[in-house]
Amino acid sequence: MVAKSQLKFIKSLHQKKYRNQHGLFLAEGVKFVGDLLKAGCDPRHLYSTEEMAGFPGAHPISESELNRVSTLVQPNKVLGVFPIPSQTPPQFSDWLLALDGVSDPGNLGTIIRLCDWFGIRHILCSPDTVDCYNPKVLMATMGSISRVQVHYAPLEEVLSQSGMPLFGASMEGEPLKEFVFPEEGIIVMGSESHGISSGVRNQLQRLLSIPSQAAHGAESLNVGTATAIVLYELRRGTP
Amino acid sequence: MVAKSQLKFIKSLHQKKYRNQHGLFLAEGVKFVGDLLKAGCDPRHLYSTEEMAGFPGAHPISESELNRVSTLVQPNKVLGVFPIPSQTPPQFSDWLLALDGVSDPGNLGTIIRLCDWFGIRHILCSPDTVDCYNPKVLMATMGSISRVQVHYAPLEEVLSQSGMPLFGASMEGEPLKEFVFPEEGIIVMGSESHGISSGVRNQLQRLLSIPSQAAHGAESLNVGTATAIVLYELRRGTP
Repeated sequence: MVAKSQLKFIKSLHQKKYRNQHGLFLAEGVKFVGDLLKAGCDPRHLYSTEEMAGFPGAHPISESELNRVSTLVQPNKVLGVFPIPSQTPPQFSDWLLALDGVSDPGNLGTIIRLCDWFGIRHILCSPDTVDCYNPKVLMATMGSISRVQVHYAPLEEVLSQSGMPLFGASMEGEPLKEFVFPEEGIIVMGSESHGISSGVRNQLQRLLSIPSQAAHGAESLNVGTATAIVLYELRRGTP
Repeated sequence: MVAKSQLKFIKSLHQKKYRNQHGLFLAEGVKFVGDLLKAGCDPRHLYSTEEMAGFPGAHPISESELNRVSTLVQPNKVLGVFPIPSQTPPQFSDWLLALDGVSDPGNLGTIIRLCDWFGIRHILCSPDTVDCYNPKVLMATMGSISRVQVHYAPLEEVLSQSGMPLFGASMEGEPLKEFVFPEEGIIVMGSESHGISSGVRNQLQRLLSIPSQAAHGAESLNVGTATAIVLYELRRGTP
Protein backbone atom coordinates (compact mmCIF):
# COMPACT_ATOMS: atom_id res chain seq x y z
CA MET A 1 0.00 0.00 0.00
CA VAL A 2 1.41 3.35 -1.06
CA ALA A 3 0.09 6.58 0.51
CA LYS A 4 -2.26 8.63 -1.67
CA SER A 5 -0.03 11.69 -1.36
CA GLN A 6 2.93 9.66 -2.59
CA LEU A 7 0.95 8.33 -5.58
CA LYS A 8 0.02 11.91 -6.41
CA PHE A 9 3.65 12.95 -6.11
CA ILE A 10 4.82 10.14 -8.42
CA LYS A 11 2.17 11.04 -10.95
CA SER A 12 3.27 14.68 -10.91
CA LEU A 13 6.62 13.52 -12.35
CA HIS A 14 4.86 12.79 -15.66
CA GLN A 15 5.20 16.55 -16.17
CA LYS A 16 8.45 18.34 -16.94
CA LYS A 17 7.56 21.20 -14.59
CA TYR A 18 7.46 18.92 -11.55
CA ARG A 19 10.45 16.87 -12.68
CA ASN A 20 12.49 20.04 -12.74
CA GLN A 21 11.00 21.36 -9.50
CA HIS A 22 11.94 18.20 -7.60
CA GLY A 23 15.00 17.26 -9.65
CA LEU A 24 13.57 13.77 -10.06
CA PHE A 25 12.41 11.54 -12.88
CA LEU A 26 10.36 8.39 -13.20
CA ALA A 27 11.74 5.12 -14.53
CA GLU A 28 9.53 2.12 -15.26
CA GLY A 29 10.05 -1.52 -16.05
CA VAL A 30 12.29 -4.26 -14.69
CA LYS A 31 14.84 -3.85 -17.46
CA PHE A 32 15.13 -0.05 -17.43
CA VAL A 33 15.18 0.34 -13.64
CA GLY A 34 17.68 -2.52 -13.48
CA ASP A 35 19.89 -0.75 -16.03
CA LEU A 36 19.84 2.45 -13.97
CA LEU A 37 20.76 0.58 -10.78
CA LYS A 38 23.55 -1.22 -12.61
CA ALA A 39 24.83 2.15 -13.86
CA GLY A 40 25.11 3.26 -10.23
CA CYS A 41 22.02 5.50 -10.11
CA ASP A 42 20.66 5.74 -6.57
CA PRO A 43 16.83 5.71 -6.48
CA ARG A 44 14.93 8.04 -4.18
CA HIS A 45 11.98 5.62 -4.20
CA LEU A 46 11.64 2.13 -5.57
CA TYR A 47 8.50 0.02 -5.90
CA SER A 48 7.69 -3.42 -7.22
CA THR A 49 4.52 -5.47 -7.55
CA GLU A 50 4.04 -8.79 -5.78
CA GLU A 51 5.24 -10.61 -8.89
CA MET A 52 8.64 -8.91 -8.47
CA ALA A 53 8.61 -9.02 -4.68
CA GLY A 54 12.29 -9.91 -4.51
CA PHE A 55 13.43 -6.81 -6.43
CA PRO A 56 16.28 -5.45 -4.27
CA GLY A 57 15.36 -2.45 -2.13
CA ALA A 58 11.83 -2.15 -3.54
CA HIS A 59 8.72 -1.40 -1.50
CA PRO A 60 5.50 -3.18 -2.42
CA ILE A 61 3.02 -1.50 -4.76
CA SER A 62 -0.27 -3.07 -5.85
CA GLU A 63 -1.13 -3.56 -9.52
CA SER A 64 -3.93 -1.02 -9.25
CA GLU A 65 -1.68 1.56 -7.57
CA LEU A 66 0.93 1.02 -10.27
CA ASN A 67 -1.75 1.43 -12.91
CA ARG A 68 -2.68 4.79 -11.42
CA VAL A 69 0.82 6.29 -11.54
CA SER A 70 2.27 4.54 -14.59
CA THR A 71 2.85 6.30 -17.90
CA LEU A 72 2.58 2.96 -19.71
CA VAL A 73 -0.47 1.32 -21.25
CA GLN A 74 0.77 -1.94 -19.76
CA PRO A 75 2.57 -1.07 -16.51
CA ASN A 76 5.63 -3.21 -15.90
CA LYS A 77 6.11 -4.47 -12.34
CA VAL A 78 8.86 -2.08 -11.18
CA LEU A 79 8.89 1.69 -10.81
CA GLY A 80 11.65 3.93 -9.53
CA VAL A 81 12.03 7.62 -8.79
CA PHE A 82 15.57 8.73 -9.53
CA PRO A 83 17.41 12.05 -9.11
CA ILE A 84 18.11 13.84 -12.37
CA PRO A 85 21.93 13.75 -12.58
CA SER A 86 23.52 17.15 -12.03
CA GLN A 87 24.72 18.70 -15.26
CA THR A 88 28.44 18.71 -15.84
CA PRO A 89 29.80 20.73 -18.77
CA PRO A 90 30.04 18.79 -22.04
CA GLN A 91 33.44 17.51 -23.08
CA PHE A 92 34.48 18.98 -26.39
CA SER A 93 36.51 16.11 -27.78
CA ASP A 94 35.82 13.36 -30.34
CA TRP A 95 32.34 13.95 -31.85
CA LEU A 96 29.24 15.47 -30.32
CA LEU A 97 25.71 15.58 -31.65
CA ALA A 98 23.60 18.74 -31.41
CA LEU A 99 19.82 18.77 -31.73
CA ASP A 100 18.09 21.96 -32.78
CA GLY A 101 14.45 21.75 -31.73
CA VAL A 102 13.72 18.02 -32.02
CA SER A 103 10.23 17.83 -30.54
CA ASP A 104 9.06 14.22 -30.84
CA PRO A 105 9.86 12.13 -27.73
CA GLY A 106 10.25 8.93 -29.75
CA ASN A 107 12.77 10.62 -32.03
CA LEU A 108 14.87 11.93 -29.13
CA GLY A 109 14.81 8.51 -27.45
CA THR A 110 15.87 6.82 -30.68
CA ILE A 111 18.70 9.34 -31.11
CA ILE A 112 20.00 8.82 -27.55
CA ARG A 113 20.05 5.05 -28.18
CA LEU A 114 21.91 5.60 -31.47
CA CYS A 115 24.51 7.80 -29.76
CA ASP A 116 25.03 5.06 -27.20
CA TRP A 117 25.56 2.54 -30.02
CA PHE A 118 27.98 4.72 -31.93
CA GLY A 119 29.94 5.92 -28.91
CA ILE A 120 28.77 9.54 -28.92
CA ARG A 121 28.90 10.55 -25.25
CA HIS A 122 27.42 14.06 -25.34
CA ILE A 123 24.30 15.48 -26.96
CA LEU A 124 23.76 19.25 -26.97
CA CYS A 125 20.09 20.21 -27.15
CA SER A 126 18.51 23.57 -27.85
CA PRO A 127 16.14 24.56 -25.01
CA ASP A 128 13.11 23.85 -27.23
CA THR A 129 14.16 20.23 -27.76
CA VAL A 130 11.87 17.81 -25.88
CA ASP A 131 12.94 16.97 -22.30
CA CYS A 132 15.08 13.84 -22.17
CA TYR A 133 13.38 12.74 -18.94
CA ASN A 134 9.97 12.71 -20.63
CA PRO A 135 8.68 9.15 -20.02
CA LYS A 136 8.22 8.50 -23.75
CA VAL A 137 11.81 9.55 -24.43
CA LEU A 138 13.06 7.28 -21.65
CA MET A 139 11.12 4.30 -23.02
CA ALA A 140 12.62 4.79 -26.48
CA THR A 141 16.19 5.08 -25.15
CA MET A 142 16.00 1.47 -23.87
CA GLY A 143 18.30 2.35 -20.97
CA SER A 144 20.82 4.36 -23.01
CA ILE A 145 19.96 7.50 -21.02
CA SER A 146 22.26 6.23 -18.25
CA ARG A 147 25.25 6.21 -20.62
CA VAL A 148 24.77 9.34 -22.76
CA GLN A 149 24.89 12.87 -21.36
CA VAL A 150 22.22 15.22 -22.63
CA HIS A 151 22.89 18.94 -22.17
CA TYR A 152 20.29 21.67 -22.66
CA ALA A 153 21.70 25.08 -23.53
CA PRO A 154 21.33 27.90 -26.06
CA LEU A 155 22.79 26.18 -29.08
CA GLU A 156 24.19 29.21 -30.93
CA GLU A 157 26.22 30.21 -27.88
CA VAL A 158 27.50 26.73 -27.01
CA LEU A 159 28.48 25.97 -30.61
CA SER A 160 30.34 29.23 -31.09
CA GLN A 161 32.23 28.76 -27.82
CA SER A 162 33.06 25.11 -28.46
CA GLY A 163 36.00 25.85 -30.74
CA MET A 164 35.14 22.73 -32.74
CA PRO A 165 34.43 22.26 -36.45
CA LEU A 166 30.67 22.51 -36.98
CA PHE A 167 28.57 20.59 -39.51
CA GLY A 168 24.89 20.07 -40.11
CA ALA A 169 22.55 17.69 -41.88
CA SER A 170 20.37 19.31 -44.52
CA MET A 171 18.65 18.35 -47.76
CA GLU A 172 20.69 21.07 -49.49
CA GLY A 173 24.05 19.72 -48.34
CA GLU A 174 26.74 17.84 -50.22
CA PRO A 175 26.37 14.03 -50.24
CA LEU A 176 27.44 12.55 -46.92
CA LYS A 177 29.60 9.83 -48.46
CA GLU A 178 31.79 12.34 -50.28
CA PHE A 179 32.69 14.13 -47.09
CA VAL A 180 35.85 13.24 -45.17
CA PHE A 181 35.06 13.70 -41.50
CA PRO A 182 37.81 15.29 -39.40
CA GLU A 183 38.96 13.75 -36.11
CA GLU A 184 36.45 15.69 -34.09
CA GLY A 185 33.57 18.05 -34.41
CA ILE A 186 29.90 18.67 -33.78
CA ILE A 187 27.13 17.62 -36.13
CA VAL A 188 23.77 19.38 -35.90
CA MET A 189 20.41 17.78 -36.70
CA GLY A 190 17.43 20.09 -37.15
CA SER A 191 13.83 19.86 -36.01
CA GLU A 192 11.24 17.62 -37.67
CA SER A 193 9.37 20.51 -39.22
CA HIS A 194 11.81 23.41 -39.65
CA GLY A 195 15.27 21.86 -39.94
CA ILE A 196 18.20 23.81 -38.52
CA SER A 197 17.44 27.35 -37.33
CA SER A 198 19.12 30.16 -39.25
CA GLY A 199 21.25 31.37 -36.31
CA VAL A 200 22.80 27.94 -35.93
CA ARG A 201 23.01 27.34 -39.66
CA ASN A 202 25.11 30.46 -40.11
CA GLN A 203 27.80 28.99 -37.90
CA LEU A 204 28.16 25.72 -39.81
CA GLN A 205 31.17 25.07 -42.01
CA ARG A 206 29.45 22.49 -44.21
CA LEU A 207 26.04 21.00 -44.78
CA LEU A 208 25.76 17.28 -45.47
CA SER A 209 22.88 15.43 -47.11
CA ILE A 210 21.62 11.88 -47.55
CA PRO A 211 20.67 11.76 -51.23
CA SER A 212 17.39 10.09 -52.15
CA GLN A 213 17.55 7.26 -54.68
CA ALA A 214 14.05 7.71 -56.06
CA ALA A 215 12.85 10.33 -58.52
CA HIS A 216 9.44 10.83 -56.93
CA GLY A 217 9.89 9.21 -53.55
CA ALA A 218 9.51 10.37 -49.95
CA GLU A 219 9.99 14.10 -49.41
CA SER A 220 12.27 13.68 -46.44
CA LEU A 221 13.70 11.27 -43.91
CA ASN A 222 12.61 11.14 -40.30
CA VAL A 223 15.22 12.83 -38.01
CA GLY A 224 15.80 9.54 -36.16
CA THR A 225 16.65 7.57 -39.28
CA ALA A 226 18.67 10.48 -40.71
CA THR A 227 20.72 10.60 -37.50
CA ALA A 228 21.27 6.83 -37.75
CA ILE A 229 22.79 7.25 -41.21
CA VAL A 230 24.86 10.32 -40.29
CA LEU A 231 26.38 8.64 -37.21
CA TYR A 232 26.99 5.44 -39.17
CA GLU A 233 28.88 7.34 -41.86
CA LEU A 234 30.75 9.39 -39.25
CA ARG A 235 32.04 6.21 -37.61
CA ARG A 236 32.36 4.20 -40.83
CA GLY A 237 35.74 5.40 -41.94
CA THR A 238 36.80 4.69 -45.49
CA PRO A 239 36.75 1.00 -46.38
CA MET B 1 -24.00 15.27 -40.98
CA VAL B 2 -22.86 11.70 -41.49
CA ALA B 3 -25.25 8.79 -40.78
CA LYS B 4 -24.57 6.89 -37.57
CA SER B 5 -24.27 3.61 -39.43
CA GLN B 6 -21.62 5.14 -41.68
CA LEU B 7 -19.66 6.46 -38.69
CA LYS B 8 -19.76 3.00 -37.20
CA PHE B 9 -18.59 1.53 -40.49
CA ILE B 10 -15.67 3.98 -40.73
CA LYS B 11 -14.68 3.22 -37.17
CA SER B 12 -14.69 -0.51 -37.88
CA LEU B 13 -11.80 0.09 -40.29
CA HIS B 14 -9.54 0.77 -37.30
CA GLN B 15 -9.40 -3.02 -37.10
CA LYS B 16 -7.52 -5.26 -39.50
CA LYS B 17 -10.36 -7.81 -39.53
CA TYR B 18 -12.82 -5.29 -40.99
CA ARG B 19 -10.25 -3.70 -43.32
CA ASN B 20 -9.70 -7.13 -44.86
CA GLN B 21 -13.40 -7.99 -44.88
CA HIS B 22 -14.28 -4.80 -46.79
CA GLY B 23 -11.00 -4.44 -48.69
CA LEU B 24 -10.84 -0.83 -47.51
CA PHE B 25 -8.55 1.30 -45.37
CA LEU B 26 -8.77 4.64 -43.64
CA ALA B 27 -6.59 7.61 -44.54
CA GLU B 28 -6.51 10.78 -42.48
CA GLY B 29 -5.14 14.27 -42.87
CA VAL B 30 -5.03 16.81 -45.68
CA LYS B 31 -1.50 15.86 -46.69
CA PHE B 32 -1.86 12.08 -46.65
CA VAL B 33 -5.27 11.99 -48.37
CA GLY B 34 -3.98 14.51 -50.90
CA ASP B 35 -0.96 12.28 -51.59
CA LEU B 36 -3.21 9.28 -52.22
CA LEU B 37 -5.41 11.27 -54.60
CA LYS B 38 -2.33 12.56 -56.42
CA ALA B 39 -1.07 8.98 -56.73
CA GLY B 40 -4.33 8.11 -58.53
CA CYS B 41 -6.07 6.31 -55.65
CA ASP B 42 -9.83 6.51 -56.00
CA PRO B 43 -11.59 7.01 -52.64
CA ARG B 44 -14.74 5.12 -51.80
CA HIS B 45 -15.73 7.87 -49.34
CA LEU B 46 -14.22 11.28 -48.69
CA TYR B 47 -15.04 13.73 -45.91
CA SER B 48 -13.77 17.13 -44.86
CA THR B 49 -14.61 19.53 -42.04
CA GLU B 50 -15.97 23.02 -42.67
CA GLU B 51 -12.47 24.44 -42.49
CA MET B 52 -11.55 22.35 -45.57
CA ALA B 53 -14.95 22.76 -47.25
CA GLY B 54 -13.36 23.19 -50.69
CA PHE B 55 -11.56 19.84 -50.59
CA PRO B 56 -12.40 18.29 -54.00
CA GLY B 57 -15.10 15.62 -53.90
CA ALA B 58 -15.41 15.64 -50.11
CA HIS B 59 -18.68 15.45 -48.18
CA PRO B 60 -19.04 17.53 -45.05
CA ILE B 61 -18.26 16.01 -41.66
CA SER B 62 -18.53 17.88 -38.37
CA GLU B 63 -15.58 18.19 -35.99
CA SER B 64 -17.35 16.03 -33.42
CA GLU B 65 -18.19 13.34 -35.98
CA LEU B 66 -14.58 13.34 -37.14
CA ASN B 67 -13.45 13.06 -33.53
CA ARG B 68 -15.61 9.98 -33.11
CA VAL B 69 -14.16 8.06 -36.05
CA SER B 70 -10.59 9.36 -36.12
CA THR B 71 -7.61 7.29 -35.01
CA LEU B 72 -5.70 10.49 -34.23
CA VAL B 73 -5.46 12.36 -30.94
CA GLN B 74 -5.85 15.54 -32.96
CA PRO B 75 -8.05 14.71 -35.96
CA ASN B 76 -6.97 16.49 -39.11
CA LYS B 77 -9.79 17.98 -41.26
CA VAL B 78 -9.91 15.35 -44.02
CA LEU B 79 -10.69 11.64 -43.92
CA GLY B 80 -10.92 9.20 -46.80
CA VAL B 81 -11.87 5.55 -47.18
CA PHE B 82 -9.80 3.94 -49.93
CA PRO B 83 -9.78 0.47 -51.49
CA ILE B 84 -6.79 -1.65 -50.51
CA PRO B 85 -4.93 -2.04 -53.84
CA SER B 86 -5.12 -5.54 -55.24
CA GLN B 87 -1.92 -7.48 -54.77
CA THR B 88 0.24 -7.99 -57.79
CA PRO B 89 3.19 -10.37 -57.54
CA PRO B 90 6.44 -8.73 -56.40
CA GLN B 91 9.04 -7.97 -59.06
CA PHE B 92 12.25 -9.80 -58.38
CA SER B 93 14.73 -7.31 -59.78
CA ASP B 94 17.02 -4.71 -58.21
CA TRP B 95 16.79 -4.98 -54.41
CA LEU B 96 13.87 -5.99 -52.23
CA LEU B 97 13.50 -5.77 -48.48
CA ALA B 98 11.95 -8.62 -46.47
CA LEU B 99 10.58 -8.20 -42.95
CA ASP B 100 10.36 -11.24 -40.71
CA GLY B 101 7.86 -10.50 -37.95
CA VAL B 102 8.26 -6.74 -37.46
CA SER B 103 5.43 -6.00 -35.03
CA ASP B 104 5.62 -2.32 -34.13
CA PRO B 105 3.47 -0.10 -36.40
CA GLY B 106 5.85 2.87 -36.08
CA ASN B 107 8.76 0.70 -37.17
CA LEU B 108 6.94 -0.63 -40.24
CA GLY B 109 5.84 2.89 -41.21
CA THR B 110 9.38 4.18 -40.82
CA ILE B 111 10.71 1.32 -42.96
CA ILE B 112 8.18 1.94 -45.75
CA ARG B 113 9.21 5.60 -45.79
CA LEU B 114 12.88 4.59 -45.94
CA CYS B 115 12.23 2.23 -48.86
CA ASP B 116 10.52 5.08 -50.69
CA TRP B 117 13.57 7.29 -50.08
CA PHE B 118 16.07 4.67 -51.20
CA GLY B 119 14.11 3.49 -54.22
CA ILE B 120 13.14 0.05 -52.89
CA ARG B 121 9.81 -0.71 -54.59
CA HIS B 122 8.80 -4.00 -52.96
CA ILE B 123 8.70 -5.13 -49.35
CA LEU B 124 8.02 -8.80 -48.57
CA CYS B 125 6.43 -9.30 -45.15
CA SER B 126 5.95 -12.50 -43.17
CA PRO B 127 2.27 -12.99 -42.28
CA ASP B 128 3.00 -12.07 -38.63
CA THR B 129 4.38 -8.65 -39.61
CA VAL B 130 2.01 -5.83 -38.59
CA ASP B 131 -0.61 -4.87 -41.21
CA CYS B 132 0.61 -2.02 -43.41
CA TYR B 133 -2.89 -0.46 -43.42
CA ASN B 134 -2.87 -0.16 -39.65
CA PRO B 135 -3.54 3.58 -39.04
CA LYS B 136 -0.34 4.00 -37.01
CA VAL B 137 1.70 2.46 -39.82
CA LEU B 138 0.06 4.77 -42.36
CA MET B 139 0.81 7.85 -40.24
CA ALA B 140 4.47 6.91 -39.98
CA THR B 141 4.81 6.29 -43.73
CA MET B 142 4.04 9.96 -44.42
CA GLY B 143 2.37 9.03 -47.70
CA SER B 144 5.02 6.59 -48.88
CA ILE B 145 2.51 3.73 -48.77
CA SER B 146 1.21 4.93 -52.14
CA ARG B 147 4.62 4.39 -53.74
CA VAL B 148 5.92 1.21 -52.12
CA GLN B 149 4.29 -2.20 -52.58
CA VAL B 150 3.96 -4.30 -49.46
CA HIS B 151 3.38 -8.02 -49.98
CA TYR B 152 2.35 -10.45 -47.23
CA ALA B 153 3.33 -14.05 -47.84
CA PRO B 154 5.07 -17.00 -46.17
CA LEU B 155 8.63 -15.71 -46.23
CA GLU B 156 10.51 -19.01 -46.43
CA GLU B 157 8.57 -20.01 -49.52
CA VAL B 158 8.80 -16.66 -51.31
CA LEU B 159 12.50 -16.31 -50.63
CA SER B 160 13.36 -19.79 -51.83
CA GLN B 161 11.33 -19.31 -55.01
CA SER B 162 12.71 -15.85 -55.73
CA GLY B 163 15.94 -17.11 -57.25
CA MET B 164 17.73 -14.08 -55.83
CA PRO B 165 20.77 -13.80 -53.57
CA LEU B 166 19.54 -13.63 -49.96
CA PHE B 167 21.11 -11.66 -47.11
CA GLY B 168 20.10 -10.75 -43.61
CA ALA B 169 20.95 -8.23 -40.90
CA SER B 170 22.12 -9.76 -37.65
CA MET B 171 24.37 -8.84 -34.74
CA GLU B 172 26.47 -11.92 -35.57
CA GLY B 173 27.09 -10.91 -39.18
CA GLU B 174 30.17 -9.51 -40.88
CA PRO B 175 30.51 -5.71 -40.82
CA LEU B 176 28.20 -4.14 -43.39
CA LYS B 177 30.84 -1.81 -44.82
CA GLU B 178 33.13 -4.68 -45.77
CA PHE B 179 30.47 -6.33 -47.87
CA VAL B 180 30.26 -5.71 -51.61
CA PHE B 181 26.58 -5.77 -52.52
CA PRO B 182 25.73 -7.53 -55.78
CA GLU B 183 23.50 -5.91 -58.41
CA GLU B 184 20.36 -7.37 -56.94
CA GLY B 185 19.09 -9.37 -54.01
CA ILE B 186 16.83 -9.50 -51.00
CA ILE B 187 17.83 -8.30 -47.57
CA VAL B 188 15.95 -9.61 -44.54
CA MET B 189 15.39 -7.67 -41.31
CA GLY B 190 14.18 -9.63 -38.29
CA SER B 191 11.62 -8.87 -35.62
CA GLU B 192 12.24 -6.46 -32.73
CA SER B 193 12.44 -9.22 -30.14
CA HIS B 194 13.54 -12.40 -31.90
CA GLY B 195 15.51 -11.33 -34.97
CA ILE B 196 15.29 -13.51 -38.08
CA SER B 197 13.46 -16.84 -37.66
CA SER B 198 15.56 -19.96 -38.09
CA GLY B 199 13.74 -21.21 -41.21
CA VAL B 200 14.49 -17.97 -43.02
CA ARG B 201 17.98 -17.68 -41.58
CA ASN B 202 18.93 -21.06 -43.01
CA GLN B 203 18.32 -19.76 -46.51
CA LEU B 204 20.57 -16.72 -46.22
CA GLN B 205 23.94 -16.60 -47.95
CA ARG B 206 25.46 -14.01 -45.63
CA LEU B 207 24.64 -12.14 -42.44
CA LEU B 208 25.59 -8.49 -42.17
CA SER B 209 26.00 -6.43 -39.01
CA ILE B 210 26.29 -2.81 -37.97
CA PRO B 211 29.16 -2.84 -35.47
CA SER B 212 28.74 -0.87 -32.27
CA GLN B 213 31.40 1.74 -31.49
CA ALA B 214 31.03 1.61 -27.73
CA ALA B 215 32.37 -1.02 -25.34
CA HIS B 216 29.41 -0.98 -22.99
CA GLY B 217 26.79 0.83 -25.06
CA ALA B 218 23.27 0.00 -26.22
CA GLU B 219 22.55 -3.72 -26.60
CA SER B 220 20.97 -3.36 -30.00
CA LEU B 221 19.64 -0.95 -32.60
CA ASN B 222 15.96 -0.41 -33.29
CA VAL B 223 14.88 -2.23 -36.49
CA GLY B 224 13.90 1.09 -38.10
CA THR B 225 17.30 2.71 -37.60
CA ALA B 226 19.09 -0.53 -38.52
CA THR B 227 17.11 -0.65 -41.78
CA ALA B 228 18.05 2.98 -42.45
CA ILE B 229 21.74 2.12 -42.22
CA VAL B 230 21.46 -1.11 -44.24
CA LEU B 231 19.59 0.61 -47.10
CA TYR B 232 21.97 3.55 -47.02
CA GLU B 233 24.98 1.24 -47.34
CA LEU B 234 23.22 -0.83 -50.02
CA ARG B 235 22.73 2.27 -52.15
CA ARG B 236 25.95 3.99 -51.14
CA GLY B 237 28.29 2.32 -53.57
CA THR B 238 32.01 2.63 -52.98
CA PRO B 239 33.24 6.21 -52.85
